[in-house]
Amino acid sequence: MSSPVVIEVTRGPVVESRHEGIAAVVKPDGTVVGAWGDIDRPILPRSANKPIQAMAFVESGAVERFGLGNEHIALACASHSGEKRHVETVRAWLVKVGLSEADLECGIHPPRLQATIEELARTGKSATAAYNNCSGKHSGFLTTALQYGEPTRGYIKYDHPVQRRLREVMTDLCGDDANGFPYGTDGCGIPTLATPLKSLARAMANMAEPSRLSNKHAEAATRIRAAMNAEPFMMAGTGRFCTRINQALPGVAQIKTGAEGVFCGMLPTLGLGIAIKILDGAARAAEVAMASLLHHFDVLPAAERDEILHPPVRNVVGLLVGEMRPAKSWLAKSSLG
Amino acid sequence: MSSPVVIEVTRGPVVESRHEGIAAVVKPDGTVVGAWGDIDRPILPRSANKPIQAMAFVESGAVERFGLGNEHIALACASHSGEKRHVETVRAWLVKVGLSEADLECGIHPPRLQATIEELARTGKSATAAYNNCSGKHSGFLTTALQYGEPTRGYIKYDHPVQRRLREVMTDLCGDDANGFPYGTDGCGIPTLATPLKSLARAMANMAEPSRLSNKHAEAATRIRAAMNAEPFMMAGTGRFCTRINQALPGVAQIKTGAEGVFCGMLPTLGLGIAIKILDGAARAAEVAMASLLHHFDVLPAAERDEILHPPVRNVVGLLVGEMRPAKSWLAKSSLG
Repeated sequence: MSSPVVIEVTRGPVVESRHEGIAAVVKPDGTVVGAWGDIDRPILPRSANKPIQAMAFVESGAVERFGLGNEHIALACASHSGEKRHVETVRAWLVKVGLSEADLECGIHPPRLQATIEELARTGKSATAAYNNCSGKHSGFLTTALQYGEPTRGYIKYDHPVQRRLREVMTDLCGDDANGFPYGTDGCGIPTLATPLKSLARAMANMAEPSRLSNKHAEAATRIRAAMNAEPFMMAGTGRFCTRINQALPGVAQIKTGAEGVFCGMLPTLGLGIAIKILDGAARAAEVAMASLLHHFDVLPAAERDEILHPPVRNVVGLLVGEMRPAKSWLAKSSLG
Repeated sequence: MSSPVVIEVTRGPVVESRHEGIAAVVKPDGTVVGAWGDIDRPILPRSANKPIQAMAFVESGAVERFGLGNEHIALACASHSGEKRHVETVRAWLVKVGLSEADLECGIHPPRLQATIEELARTGKSATAAYNNCSGKHSGFLTTALQYGEPTRGYIKYDHPVQRRLREVMTDLCGDDANGFPYGTDGCGIPTLATPLKSLARAMANMAEPSRLSNKHAEAATRIRAAMNAEPFMMAGTGRFCTRINQALPGVAQIKTGAEGVFCGMLPTLGLGIAIKILDGAARAAEVAMASLLHHFDVLPAAERDEILHPPVRNVVGLLVGEMRPAKSWLAKSSLG
């Protein structure tokens, strides 16, 4: 097995902490272009495969029927921060299809930014389901169920047609039978399928370069990638890594983070898919790993390079006290196929 | 080298994430009672050695001179949540010694609890330096400088007498020359000394069972341990692990968390010191590792056992979707000396 992903966190002269991970870079036919660690290992993709989960929504024709656009497709792929534009767009979307926040089964969690929490407190309001980072994905699920005349209630359950359809798409994209994957329950209540990392990367490769897919899948994949680049704010929010990269690399990269250290990416100009899992679940390391792979495949703009390859570690007063970085042992040429 | 600490995070039938760490359990004379992973490795103790950093403050006589008590000693050892009682006690302390929050050099960060952030926003206030989780420790530093007639300004600098004194105490407690340790800058601005894990555990053992120390050190250590148990809320805050354990085990255990996955503990009835470092820096795993060691040494009350040995992982709506747990491979009898 090739050496794993290693991300270091320094403080002064000391490597204070260290993250290990696995990463796969794969072509649409499953050819492995880069492998670090055990890429056959099943991992829970969590939110990192939301772009795949948006396929059935886009394929259903609901976007046209309900007059939706790129911002809604991006929200269906998003883990958003619950900022004003995210929340208002989700609410307006639900009204447009004749539903409301009460139909969302994702639950309520506080918004990500302190400023948003403070704004709610100042105005005497509370977060609602639209603030949930997954509210766009769930709105997509509800809209798809409506489009096919299926019950909206229970759309998060493993056997609901909405979830069955996600497994069909995953099967078509990754080449394995997703109905055979073990699964856990995601933060937002839907099943998250234990997918071999290599297969997840292959699914991303088929999203990136969809010529092997059916016309229906290929058109949806192309549309989803365009929406991720066109509405990068909707993908995440202020200061977020996904927003920054999807904005900086239109047509070149579309990336999506997931909980517990997962990151997926599509590189359409190279025809490659990327899947990363930091084994300890650290998001900070998954970002540096994704930045490192984008740099390795030479698609990272110079303007972004230093800060995202070596994010500063600052203390409370803002003093630079360390950095994060890919370990020198990682990304040796030998690990490329 | 013995096998490392391993903490698992499950979701459904899958081990989703996994943390590795090192841990040492040591007697006051340096005899190693338990070793997991490379315990000679230097680590940055961060806030986990605040009880040691409070020694010089207690030894100075400032507690008596200024009419301070257990709540102030506990705050000097604390990483508190910035709740009302923490903030008010720090402010009153500074007034008592003729100083103010403007003298604190720890900087300002948002309080830990969303409820506190919301309360500030509702009342149109902002966090101040007293809300900083280290404000009690810094008040102790300032008070010590006053007591010895030293300049208060610059008390966070490596060469200030306050910091020099911390290195003297550490040297006496751990048996190594702490002036030779490399160091980084901590979140609150003071030096954090790269201490071999085994030496950090030995220092904790000498705090736990101080018969090998000078009278001055021994009295201060005993007083600090008593304060940690007497004022557990001051050590951390609502819902926090340090508060819970220091409250549940008076006279039996005194524990303190640190950033980046460090945890230290004293077991006076057994005459042992504990030091843990989760290599990836995860606090969630350091807590389960500390709970596991307390259980291993048979000092964990039955009432606390299940929930802290196997903390539940819940999703947004509160559904139980997984758990954290020590891996079966860890804590085999063979790793005990």
